[in-house]
Amino acid sequence: MPKIITISREFSSGGRELGKRLAEELGIPCYDRQIIDMVAEKQGLDKAYVANMSEKDIKVFYSSTIGRGFTSYNFGVSQSLLIANAEHNLIKELASKGDCVIIGRAADVVLKEFNPLNLFVYADLESKIKRCKERSEEKEPLSDRKIKNMCRDIDRCRANYREIFSDTKWGRRESYHLCINTSGKEIKKLIPALAAYVNNWFE
Amino acid sequence: MPKIITISREFSSGGRELGKRLAEELGIPCYDRQIIDMVAEKQGLDKAYVANMSEKDIKVFYSSTIGRGFTSYNFGVSQSLLIANAEHNLIKELASKGDCVIIGRAADVVLKEFNPLNLFVYADLESKIKRCKERSEEKEPLSDRKIKNMCRDIDRCRANYREIFSDTKWGRRESYHLCINTSGKEIKKLIPALAAYVNNWFE
Repeated sequence: MPKIITISREFSSGGRELGKRLAEELGIPCYDRQIIDMVAEKQGLDKAYVANMSEKDIKVFYSSTIGRGFTSYNFGVSQSLLIANAEHNLIKELASKGDCVIIGRAADVVLKEFNPLNLFVYADLESKIKRCKERSEEKEPLSDRKIKNMCRDIDRCRANYREIFSDTKWGRRESYHLCINTSGKEIKKLIPALAAYVNNWFE
Repeated sequence: MPKIITISREFSSGGRELGKRLAEELGIPCYDRQIIDMVAEKQGLDKAYVANMSEKDIKVFYSSTIGRGFTSYNFGVSQSLLIANAEHNLIKELASKGDCVIIGRAADVVLKEFNPLNLFVYADLESKIKRCKERSEEKEPLSDRKIKNMCRDIDRCRANYREIFSDTKWGRRESYHLCINTSGKEIKKLIPALAAYVNNWFE
């Protein structure tokens, strides 16, 4: 059975880093933001445009069109759904090639038939604020309040995205095989044991 | 830092087996039902009585006394709380001796000052029914419906028990460091990686 690992994560919990390091430890590819680039290339669309449409909260976007008839909003929704569909087809294509880690994009739902190991990464607010500040320091400093709001909004967006494609809930333990709390931990220290967990899982 | 590991678990998810095997793998003691025996001995009470009072749903028990004045119900509640208190003191005493695994009894809450690694073990209903049937076969066969009700009632009792001693919620990912889904898995296969996770955690 191929080792397909999906990573869902709270914003700023270190999920992306965990996914990348885990893939490195296992010696398998990790697909993250490059999914957007690959879709843009396949569809002949601008990368920034695809990235922007991918990050929209489709559910809120969709709700905003109700009662408006066929306005430009509908075009936005259909574009978001088309891009999501292209991303999901690409994710399936990548998974069918063999072992890999896929971060985000509701890959756990999309790849159900591949029997992936689905991980959920989370942390307490204090750790998320710290991590976010460390990452943003080089650009512009963010206030705790701003980061807290980002955590809330981005996670809500992720939950809504999942809800479009599945009845199971984002972040609820029953949707995943292992939920990993990274609060106050160095991600790299968790990797060897997680790699062992993955290997045991697929034995 | 001593390795103190607490196991909270859904009924019939394999949490007890996981805790015992993990302790064995780590070469450290595991405290489970013997906590009841030890408390009974210390308090000079009957083991069966302590076991029975320990399994009562204190919250429901407590609610049932409201408006009843000092009846025999109140005696039941105070006995349950006294026994819980004795159990918690014993759990602290055991943890202060060094590395150990403690199953149930809201040990994650009780041992907060010991910075334990808190695990939550869960599974889907199908797996829990299967596990429960395998265990009960030798006694009397249980129907799926009966097991489903047991899962619901016992888990509610565990959630209520925790609620007496903490504002954090039983079963919510944020209350734990690692949430482990055992659905369709042989517990023993998960142990080596989990032991590695524990060792990395306390490094």
